[in-house]
Amino acid sequence: MTQTRTPGPLNALFAPRGIAIVGASRNPAKLGAAMARSLEGFAAAGGHLALVNGRDDTMYPSIGAASADGPIDLAVLCVPAAACAAILAEAAGAGVRAALVCGGGFAEVADGQGAEHQRRLTEIARATGIRVLGPNTSGFLVPGAHLTASFVPGTSRVPSGGVAVVAASGGVNHALAFALAEAGHGISLAVGLGNGADVTAPDVLDHLAGDPDTTAVALHVETVADGPRLIAAVRRLTARRPVVALVVGRSDVGAFAASHTGALATSWRSTRAALAQAGAVLVGDERELVDAVGALAVTRARAAGDPGVGVVTAQAGPGLLLLDNLQGRSIAVPELTRHTQDGIAALLPPLTYQRNPVDTGRPGPAMSGVLKAVGADPGVDIVAAYALHEPGAVDLVAAARAGRTDGVPLVLGLGGTGEAVARDRDALRAAGIAVAGDPAGVAAATAALVADARARSIGGGEPAAPGAVVEVADDYDEGQAKDLLDHLGIATMPRRRCATRSAAHEAFDALGGDDGDGGVRPVAAKLLDAAVLHKTEIGGVHLGITGHQALDAALDRLDAAGARRYLIEAMAPPGIDLIVGARRDPVFGPVVLVGLGGTVAEALADVAVRLAPLSVEEASGMPSELSGRALLAGWRGGPVLAPRALGEVVAALGGLLAANPRIDEIEINPLRLTRTGLIALDAVILTRKADDAHPDR
Amino acid sequence: MTQTRTPGPLNALFAPRGIAIVGASRNPAKLGAAMARSLEGFAAAGGHLALVNGRDDTMYPSIGAASADGPIDLAVLCVPAAACAAILAEAAGAGVRAALVCGGGFAEVADGQGAEHQRRLTEIARATGIRVLGPNTSGFLVPGAHLTASFVPGTSRVPSGGVAVVAASGGVNHALAFALAEAGHGISLAVGLGNGADVTAPDVLDHLAGDPDTTAVALHVETVADGPRLIAAVRRLTARRPVVALVVGRSDVGAFAASHTGALATSWRSTRAALAQAGAVLVGDERELVDAVGALAVTRARAAGDPGVGVVTAQAGPGLLLLDNLQGRSIAVPELTRHTQDGIAALLPPLTYQRNPVDTGRPGPAMSGVLKAVGADPGVDIVAAYALHEPGAVDLVAAARAGRTDGVPLVLGLGGTGEAVARDRDALRAAGIAVAGDPAGVAAATAALVADARARSIGGGEPAAPGAVVEVADDYDEGQAKDLLDHLGIATMPRRRCATRSAAHEAFDALGGDDGDGGVRPVAAKLLDAAVLHKTEIGGVHLGITGHQALDAALDRLDAAGARRYLIEAMAPPGIDLIVGARRDPVFGPVVLVGLGGTVAEALADVAVRLAPLSVEEASGMPSELSGRALLAGWRGGPVLAPRALGEVVAALGGLLAANPRIDEIEINPLRLTRTGLIALDAVILTRKADDAHPDR
Repeated sequence: MTQTRTPGPLNALFAPRGIAIVGASRNPAKLGAAMARSLEGFAAAGGHLALVNGRDDTMYPSIGAASADGPIDLAVLCVPAAACAAILAEAAGAGVRAALVCGGGFAEVADGQGAEHQRRLTEIARATGIRVLGPNTSGFLVPGAHLTASFVPGTSRVPSGGVAVVAASGGVNHALAFALAEAGHGISLAVGLGNGADVTAPDVLDHLAGDPDTTAVALHVETVADGPRLIAAVRRLTARRPVVALVVGRSDVGAFAASHTGALATSWRSTRAALAQAGAVLVGDERELVDAVGALAVTRARAAGDPGVGVVTAQAGPGLLLLDNLQGRSIAVPELTRHTQDGIAALLPPLTYQRNPVDTGRPGPAMSGVLKAVGADPGVDIVAAYALHEPGAVDLVAAARAGRTDGVPLVLGLGGTGEAVARDRDALRAAGIAVAGDPAGVAAATAALVADARARSIGGGEPAAPGAVVEVADDYDEGQAKDLLDHLGIATMPRRRCATRSAAHEAFDALGGDDGDGGVRPVAAKLLDAAVLHKTEIGGVHLGITGHQALDAALDRLDAAGARRYLIEAMAPPGIDLIVGARRDPVFGPVVLVGLGGTVAEALADVAVRLAPLSVEEASGMPSELSGRALLAGWRGGPVLAPRALGEVVAALGGLLAANPRIDEIEINPLRLTRTGLIALDAVILTRKADDAHPDR
Repeated sequence: MTQTRTPGPLNALFAPRGIAIVGASRNPAKLGAAMARSLEGFAAAGGHLALVNGRDDTMYPSIGAASADGPIDLAVLCVPAAACAAILAEAAGAGVRAALVCGGGFAEVADGQGAEHQRRLTEIARATGIRVLGPNTSGFLVPGAHLTASFVPGTSRVPSGGVAVVAASGGVNHALAFALAEAGHGISLAVGLGNGADVTAPDVLDHLAGDPDTTAVALHVETVADGPRLIAAVRRLTARRPVVALVVGRSDVGAFAASHTGALATSWRSTRAALAQAGAVLVGDERELVDAVGALAVTRARAAGDPGVGVVTAQAGPGLLLLDNLQGRSIAVPELTRHTQDGIAALLPPLTYQRNPVDTGRPGPAMSGVLKAVGADPGVDIVAAYALHEPGAVDLVAAARAGRTDGVPLVLGLGGTGEAVARDRDALRAAGIAVAGDPAGVAAATAALVADARARSIGGGEPAAPGAVVEVADDYDEGQAKDLLDHLGIATMPRRRCATRSAAHEAFDALGGDDGDGGVRPVAAKLLDAAVLHKTEIGGVHLGITGHQALDAALDRLDAAGARRYLIEAMAPPGIDLIVGARRDPVFGPVVLVGLGGTVAEALADVAVRLAPLSVEEASGMPSELSGRALLAGWRGGPVLAPRALGEVVAALGGLLAANPRIDEIEINPLRLTRTGLIALDAVILTRKADDAHPDR
C-alpha cells in the first residue's frame, strides 16, 4: 500500500508502508500469531506485511531480509521484554522508523528489571530516532487503512470515521473504540499509549493536528508526566480540532493506578482545569465521552460565552427528561422570542407548549419548519431535539436536513430499535447532524457543543503573560504580605505595624474609636510574626476592639502568645468570605484557586482551579464553577460579586507566582466580598530561600 | 387466546381475552389503522381482535356485535376526545372491563373542554368499574403475549423478558422499552400512563406485585397526585420485586410539565426521598435506569447496610475507570483479606495488583478461580468485573458461570462489538449474571445492587408509628418550644424565662458568671415573643454576656426591640451547627429534614429529606447523604457525630408532626454538635388554630 496520508510526525507508526512482525508465530495462542491475524487486513489492502522469525524458515530470518522485499516503516515486536531492546536496535539499523511493543514486563512491574528493560528501549529510541509505542499496550488501529495493530479480536470490525482516540491505556483504547462503534461513530485512529516509554500523548496529539481524516479527538488521561508539554499540545490541537478529555482519578485510585502504569496519578482537579483552559471539553465518564466526541466529530457551535439551547420534542415526556438534564447541567434554555413563537404557532396546533421547549405534539410534517424557526431564534445557538422513530408520521432525516439553520448545530435524539433506525441515524450523522438514542445522550452531546463553544469564546490560544517581577523577601508577616497585596492593587484595610503598646494605642485612635457620628469603629489587634502561620489558634487575633481598655486586654493576650510586634487594623464591614490563592502544582506549575470561606465550603472541597498565569477574563469565570455560587449573587439581600473584580485579584496572584519562582504560595483567607468591593482580611506568603529557587514550571 | 396469566387486578387491560378497536380505519394514516396493524400480532397469536366501525360494513358495527364472536375484555378507543365518554359507557354496558384511550385533547389542554371530557371518562370508570388507561398515552405492550397496544412502529420488535416499565408518559414508556431492548433486556409489560384519568401508577404497581413474569420494575415519575397511595404501593411491591425509580424535576421544569400532564410537578426531593424509603432504588437518568433495572431483573444482593464490592478486571485501564466510578458513588471497595489475596496469588502471576481491584493481567483460564476467590471474601457482597471480549484467551461465559459464588451477584462488563459479543451477553444474563458493555454500565448496575441491598437492610416494609400526642398550644415562644424539645428528650441548655430585669440578673447569677475555677461562663439574653420569628434581625439575640453590666446593656437593646420578657440561657460549648426540622409536604404529608448550618450549606441546599414518621434507624442514615458529611466526622479534630443520636432527634420531630395535626412545622436551628452531644440552641414551632386542624396527610 502506498502512503496516501499527508506527512505527519508519526506517519511511520500510523501510516506505515510496510510492517514487520518480529516474533511472528504459528502457535495461534501466541501474541505473534494474534498480531499476524490482526494485520491480515493490512496485507489484503496491499500493505507489505513481513513475518520475521529466525527460528521458522517459512518466515523472514531478520528485519533486514524483510526490507529487501519492500520498505518496512513499522516493526511490531512480539518478543519477551528482555529481548526487545536488541531487536529495536536492529530494526533502527535496518531503517525501520517506528516500533510497537505490546508486551508487559516493563516499568509497570515492581521488580526493578522491568524498569531497566524500559530504560533501554527509551535510550535506543532517543539515540536512533526510531519512535516506540508502548510497551504494555494492546496497540492501535487505523480502520481507514485496514490497519489493526492489536491483538484484541473484533477490532477489525470497528468502522472508519472521524473520531480519534488517544488513551493512556490499551484496554481503554479498545473499550472506547468498541463503544464508539456500537454508538455508530467511526474511528480515524485509536491509540493506547501503555507505559509511554517514547511516544506519549503530546506526540499523538501533535500528529492528529495535521491529520485530515480526524474531525474530533477523545483523550483519556490517567497520569501526566510533563504537564506543560501536554497542555501545549492540547492547546495547539484545540485550535484546529475539538478535543474531549476524560481524566481518571476523581476518587483515590492511587495505589492501583501506580501498579498499572508505574507512575503516580496526578491531581485530578488540576489536570481537568489545565485541559479545560487549553480548550478541551471535559466529561465525567466514558459514555459521555462517546456522546461528546461523536457530536463534535460532525458539528460544532459558534463561540459563545453562554450558548442558548432550543429544545424541540415530538413527545412531551422525553422532552421533559431532556430539559431537566440540560438545566441540571446549568445550560441555558431561553424563552423564544415573540417572533419565533408566532412563527411556530402558525405551524402547530395550539394545544402544545411552544415557548422552549417546543412540543410538536404528534410528529408530522411541521417538524422541519419548527426546527428551522427555533434555530433562527436569536437566543438559540444549538437546537436539541428528540423524536421516536415513526417513519409513517414524518421522515426525520429529511425533516432534520431541511430544518437546519446554518451555523446552528442540530442534535437529534432518535428513539427506536432495529436496522431502519440505525440506518436513519447514520444518514443524519452523514448530513452533519449529531445523533443520540435517548434524551440523556442528546443532553450529553449538547453539553459538549456548549462546552466547546464556551471554551472558544475565552480569548483563544495563547496563554497569558506572567506578572511583574518583585523583590522577594525571605519571609512575610501579615503586614508585609498585605503590603505586597497593596502593590498588586488588591484592597486591604488601613493598618499600622506597632512595635510598642503606645504605638498600638495611637494606631487605635487613628484607625478606630469614635467615628464622629455617635458610633464606634472597632479595630483588630493581631500578633505580627512571619513564623506564626496559624495566629488564631494561639490567641494571636482579637477582633471588635472598641476602646483602649479592651485594646490593653487584647495586647496582654498577644504578649502571652509571644508577640513582639502588633498589627492594628481597621475592621472590614460584614460580607461573604472567600478564599483565593496561588500555589505550585508539582506537575503543572503555578495554579490559582478560588473557594468559599468557612469550614462547610472547605469540607465540600468546593473550589475552582486554573493554571497560572491566566487572563483576568479567564479568572473571572472561576466563581461560576462553585456549587455555592448562589451565595455570591446577592444571597438574602447580601452583596453581589463583580466577577471581573475577583478575576483581577486571582490573575494578580497567579501572575505573581508565575513571575517569581521564589514565591511558593500565596493565600488570601478570607477575601471578603462587601458592598463596597473585595477586601483581603488576612494573607500568607510562603517563599523558598534564594539558593533553593527552582525553575518556574 | 385464552388467558394464561394469574389473575391480577388489571388482567382485563394487560391480559385480555379479546380486544375491540373502536374507530378502526382503513386509512393507514389514522390512529385506528395504526392500532389495528400494531395488534395484528395479538390476533396472529390466537387472540380475538375485533375491528369496530359503524360506518364501515367490513367491520363490526358495535362492541356488542363484536362480543358475540368471543369475549372482549379490552376496548381500544380510536375516536375523538368528545366521543370517548359515550363509547366508554357503551363498552362497559357490553361487558368490556378495560379501555385504552390514546388520543389527546383532554386535561392536558388548557381550553376547559378537555378537562370536562376527562372528567366524564373518570366518572364512567367509577360508576361502571371499567378500568381506563390514558387518555393521552401511546399505550402499552406485553411482548410475551404478542400484545402491542401502541401506535408507535417497531414496538413489536421489543423482546419479552423480566423488566416491567411503568412510565408517567407514553413517550418515555416507548423510549425506555427501546433503550432496554437495545441494551439486551426483555420486557414483561411496558405501560405509559398519560393523563391517568383512572389507572394510575399505584394500580399498575399492585398488578405487577402479582405478575410472575416480572422480575424488576422501572418506574418513571413526573407528578404525584396521591403521595401516600403511591408510596404504599411501592412499599408493597418492593417487598416482592426490586423497583428502580427515575423522578423528573431536578431542575425547574414546572411550566412545561404543567402543559404536558395538566398537573404541577411535585417536589423532586420529597418524591425521591419517599420512594427510597419505600424501598425503591433511585437513578439520575434513563441510562442508569436501564442499567439498574436490567441488573436487578437477573440478580439481587443480600441485604447489607454498606455492601462491599470486589472488583476484578482483565485490563487495568478499564478497571481503573470502574474503580473510580464506584468510589465516586461512595461504594466500598474493601481490601481483600490476606486469605483471599493468598488464594489469588496462587492463580495469577505476581506482576499485577491483587488487593482489590484484582487485575488478572492478560485474560486467561485463571479468571473463574479469581472470580470465585473474590466472591468468597467475607468483605465482598457483590463482584463487579470487566473484560474485553477475547474468546481465544478465555470463554468468559463459562468462566463467569463457574466463578460465581452463591448469594454474591456478579456484574460483568463485556467490551466488544458484533454478534458474538451480543450472544455472550445474552448467555450471561440467562445465567443470572448482570451484564453491561462498559465500565460506566458496570458501575451503574453495581450501584443499583448496592442501593437495593441497603434499602432492604433498613428494617423492611412497615412504616414507623407516629409519636405521642401532645397538648398543642396556639403559639410557642422560644422557651416554650424548648420545653417541648425537653419533653421529646432533645437536649437544650439551662435557661430561665424572665419577666423583669431583676429576674434576668438572678438568672445570670444562676446560669452564668464566675465558674468557680477562674473562668467566666457566658450567657445569652434573648427576646421572648412567639410573634417574632427572626429575633436576630431585630436585635433580639445577645450572646457571650459575661457580667451584669453587659447584661444590662443587652436588656436595654432587647427592650428597644420591644421585649416584654427575656430568655436568659447558658451558652453552649463550640461545635458544628446543623439544622433539623419537620414540616408538611403538600403531597406526602409530614417530612423531616437534616442539613448543615450556615449560609454556605443553605446556598448549596445540601439537605437530606425523609417522610415521617420514621424509625430512629432510618433517620440515622440521613447525615451520610449530605455532601458536607466530612464536617461531622471529626473535621480538623472537631466533634464526631453519633448518627443514632441525631436519628433520635429527627425521629422525635417527625413523630411529633405525624401525631399532632395542629403542628405545622418545627425547626431546630441550630442544633449544635458538641463534644458532649447534640444541643438545640434555638427552636421555632408553627401551629394552626384548633378549628383549622386538617387530616394528617
